[in-house]
Amino acid sequence: MSTLYYTLDNTVFRNFSFYAVASILKMMIMSPLTVRQRFQKNAFANPEDIQQQNRKTIQATTSDSDVERVRRNHLNDVENIIPFVLIGFGYIACNPNPTLAVWHFRIFFVSRLLHTFAYQIPLRQPSRAITCMIGGIATISMAIQILLQVY
Amino acid sequence: MSTLYYTLDNTVFRNFSFYAVASILKMMIMSPLTVRQRFQKNAFANPEDIQQQNRKTIQATTSDSDVERVRRNHLNDVENIIPFVLIGFGYIACNPNPTLAVWHFRIFFVSRLLHTFAYQIPLRQPSRAITCMIGGIATISMAIQILLQVY
Amino acid sequence: MSTLYYTLDNTVFRNFSFYAVASILKMMIMSPLTVRQRFQKNAFANPEDIQQQNRKTIQATTSDSDVERVRRNHLNDVENIIPFVLIGFGYIACNPNPTLAVWHFRIFFVSRLLHTFAYQIPLRQPSRAITCMIGGIATISMAIQILLQVY
Repeated sequence: MSTLYYTLDNTVFRNFSFYAVASILKMMIMSPLTVRQRFQKNAFANPEDIQQQNRKTIQATTSDSDVERVRRNHLNDVENIIPFVLIGFGYIACNPNPTLAVWHFRIFFVSRLLHTFAYQIPLRQPSRAITCMIGGIATISMAIQILLQVY
Repeated sequence: MSTLYYTLDNTVFRNFSFYAVASILKMMIMSPLTVRQRFQKNAFANPEDIQQQNRKTIQATTSDSDVERVRRNHLNDVENIIPFVLIGFGYIACNPNPTLAVWHFRIFFVSRLLHTFAYQIPLRQPSRAITCMIGGIATISMAIQILLQVY
Repeated sequence: MSTLYYTLDNTVFRNFSFYAVASILKMMIMSPLTVRQRFQKNAFANPEDIQQQNRKTIQATTSDSDVERVRRNHLNDVENIIPFVLIGFGYIACNPNPTLAVWHFRIFFVSRLLHTFAYQIPLRQPSRAITCMIGGIATISMAIQILLQVY
């Protein structure tokens, strides 16, 4: 009988579940942050989002620089966190060394936290570029380990 | 032996498969809706998308308000439906109560259907905000249940 | 005992892992391509991305047509490749015919490669539309097979 990998008895799956959920929640926080920024700057993308009494003075806009900064951060999360979670699911079936695996998950998660701070404070470049690259390397390292096992 | 959760014999996985696929198809419908809107408004993002005979009169544009409304809806789906599906996959390994689980899936799916109607008709706010929030709560509730089990 | 599907002993899962990872890596390549285009055109989205000595002459911009072409391609990948991977995960539990399954995966992956070439060269339409549609049909075909099995 082959071993079951997709169960909470498997340390790798257990750790992955924690860091995958944490990373996705980090990504989802960008939605309320965008909404907060829209209210602070009175920059709404849809006419119906503007409060009734302000419709004569405020126009819908999709070019407020502070709102767009949060939205670019959100899209960058989508482009990086979702590949990490999808590739991580496949990585579990490769039965990797649990210590090696958890360090991939930890480094990825921390790199994405730091990336958000670097983007939103914002810190001087190349802080943001480096944090983004470190997360990408963790994902690509898992991807290569899968490809080496399946072919 | 641990039980198998990722099989169609498991009611939770079976119901999840249905609502996850239904939600993803809902999201994918936004692509043809965008294309339809682009043709109706003659608002194409790339010069090569404009029919040969119209290239002298029409310019490529990425700022038509009707097209951008559909695209924002699509991106909002990406930002909400994909986290639901990813977290749902992990939720199954927690072996939740099947009735509780199916209601999470149902509420999420219906909230996203209503969100699309609220966005595209468009309905007066806070309809869209509320439907978006209900879907988010379903996802976050599953996320919390995973975090409580793995730590 | 039900059979295990999510293991590398299962040919369908093995082939899926390969094509899913390959498709995600294809998508991730769009990030460095965007960065390259930003440097070539001196078109950065954030003020802090502009090199110190150029800050007086260059303004941050999100409307350079070459950069936006790569970014639209990236977003189109997100909207199509991620649904393929998510639906593919569910498809495996349906225990499909391995030959039928691997052709779904191959056709999808090749269609996305061709889509990128059609978008970035760019080729005359309807090349891009057709490649996008073929990939979509592969994903929808898997989705329908899941729905038929679960209800």
